[in-house]
Amino acid sequence: MTTLASPTDTYPTRLDSDGRVIDRHGPVVHGGPADGPLDAGTLQHFDDKGYLLIDQLISDGELASMRQELTRISSDPQVRADERTVIEAASQEVRSIFDVHLSSDVFGAIARDPRVVGRARQILGSDVYIHQSRVNAKPGFTGKDFFWHSDFETWHAEDGMPTPRAVSISISLTDNYSFNGPLMIMPGSHRRYVSCVGPTPDDNYKSSLVMQGAGTPAHETLSAFAGDYGIDVLEGRAGGAIMFDSNCMHASNGNVTPYPRSNVFIVYNSVENTCVEPYAAPSPRPSFLGSRDFTPVG
Amino acid sequence: MTTLASPTDTYPTRLDSDGRVIDRHGPVVHGGPADGPLDAGTLQHFDDKGYLLIDQLISDGELASMRQELTRISSDPQVRADERTVIEAASQEVRSIFDVHLSSDVFGAIARDPRVVGRARQILGSDVYIHQSRVNAKPGFTGKDFFWHSDFETWHAEDGMPTPRAVSISISLTDNYSFNGPLMIMPGSHRRYVSCVGPTPDDNYKSSLVMQGAGTPAHETLSAFAGDYGIDVLEGRAGGAIMFDSNCMHASNGNVTPYPRSNVFIVYNSVENTCVEPYAAPSPRPSFLGSRDFTPVG
Repeated sequence: MTTLASPTDTYPTRLDSDGRVIDRHGPVVHGGPADGPLDAGTLQHFDDKGYLLIDQLISDGELASMRQELTRISSDPQVRADERTVIEAASQEVRSIFDVHLSSDVFGAIARDPRVVGRARQILGSDVYIHQSRVNAKPGFTGKDFFWHSDFETWHAEDGMPTPRAVSISISLTDNYSFNGPLMIMPGSHRRYVSCVGPTPDDNYKSSLVMQGAGTPAHETLSAFAGDYGIDVLEGRAGGAIMFDSNCMHASNGNVTPYPRSNVFIVYNSVENTCVEPYAAPSPRPSFLGSRDFTPVG
Repeated sequence: MTTLASPTDTYPTRLDSDGRVIDRHGPVVHGGPADGPLDAGTLQHFDDKGYLLIDQLISDGELASMRQELTRISSDPQVRADERTVIEAASQEVRSIFDVHLSSDVFGAIARDPRVVGRARQILGSDVYIHQSRVNAKPGFTGKDFFWHSDFETWHAEDGMPTPRAVSISISLTDNYSFNGPLMIMPGSHRRYVSCVGPTPDDNYKSSLVMQGAGTPAHETLSAFAGDYGIDVLEGRAGGAIMFDSNCMHASNGNVTPYPRSNVFIVYNSVENTCVEPYAAPSPRPSFLGSRDFTPVG
């Protein structure tokens, strides 16, 4: 079964026709400098580029405790057996653990922390809830790449998120060098929406967590975007963070260096943008990928 | 059949025991500032780091002609069918073409050019011959990584090169950014030789051109090397070049960006270091990988 995009959908995708590029509707930044910890210059940078960097978000003690927690839950047999954990087939190493704001006190605390929630609320101009959370571990030597995509395209198509009024934070638990597969963003790309080609298979998430298929932009579109926007490589120290708009075109290369990369990743959505039925998928993804609990946090 | 390393081999490798690290014997730079185009500072940098960068080696016109030649030979059915051409199975795109100093007038000319040969001769302190030449094309979007290795380890084990008195030049035909899978070198690693574990299979080169196996250092050794030396990411413009010692520990990450990478790669060996029987392989590799024609060039 294929659900066709609704005729009123202003961000159509997963259609059988050619992919196309649509201008974003509505603002990127909804709040002002008076509404939270981000100053006018930082908000402007976020508006222009679609992301912002925080040099040091958490203390060294918090960093140590989060690293310890990641090690602990990664080796917990119950966590490893949970469907919300993604394990690399070849190495049997943990790649991602979802829903950590619910399952871990340590990661739950940072997900509700005013330093994080205050910034998310300021950018989105409303109360926010957690759409998704996870910890990611990209091992050294064998870290896999992640191809270019807009998170919003997936969340819209498969989770029913109406508009890109959502923001992600990636808190670095390790140093990000240019050479260990850091996040790459095409700065400014968040202002254009790439409609992707091809229907969403049933239970697409089960394969897409391992290998990307539906929701992948065409090479021609990505080449044009790279020409228009360039590529920013987001280096930064452990304990720092990156916040980025849900519609940024982003990717990461693989990592053959000995330096692993891990981070805590939390997605905040505006309570004025709660999810409805998926726009281009047979049924919503499980709640650990797209939450249906819209209770404000923080 | 397995050929055991000779008892007089001062660079043993491919043994069944643990890998070990041996100090390099002999100098890195054999000539002085009076012997060629490289000044004292550049020679010192090469001695310390194991590599040097040339911002602009060739003119824009030469660059254009080399790019055109790469496009021409990559689409030539005879070249594509030749055993000296490596084609990516999935995409059917050309990844490497060997022996281009023999098969192409354009690449033959640069391989014999005084700008290149003069530098090689100065570093190696003698006349030089071409041990190997190739053009490499690393496509955008799907460029594969290349794992850490020392070229000399392979050339010693499989081609019978006695000592690391050889230098490679990589002339960039495209811009090298940190994000499109550039060469990474552990600066200073050329002073230590990593003996690798495991015997060399028959015709190892046939699989090793596609996937690396024998001649791969242990993860623990690489982690220790990264701690000791760090990692230099060699960015630079098209038309520039990198020269590096044959025993540098180097690698490159994959490339999901739209920016392809291509280069001309030529290996010069000292005529006082010509190849003998392989030190750790059943038989020498074909001449397009390790030449047996020791005639000086330039």
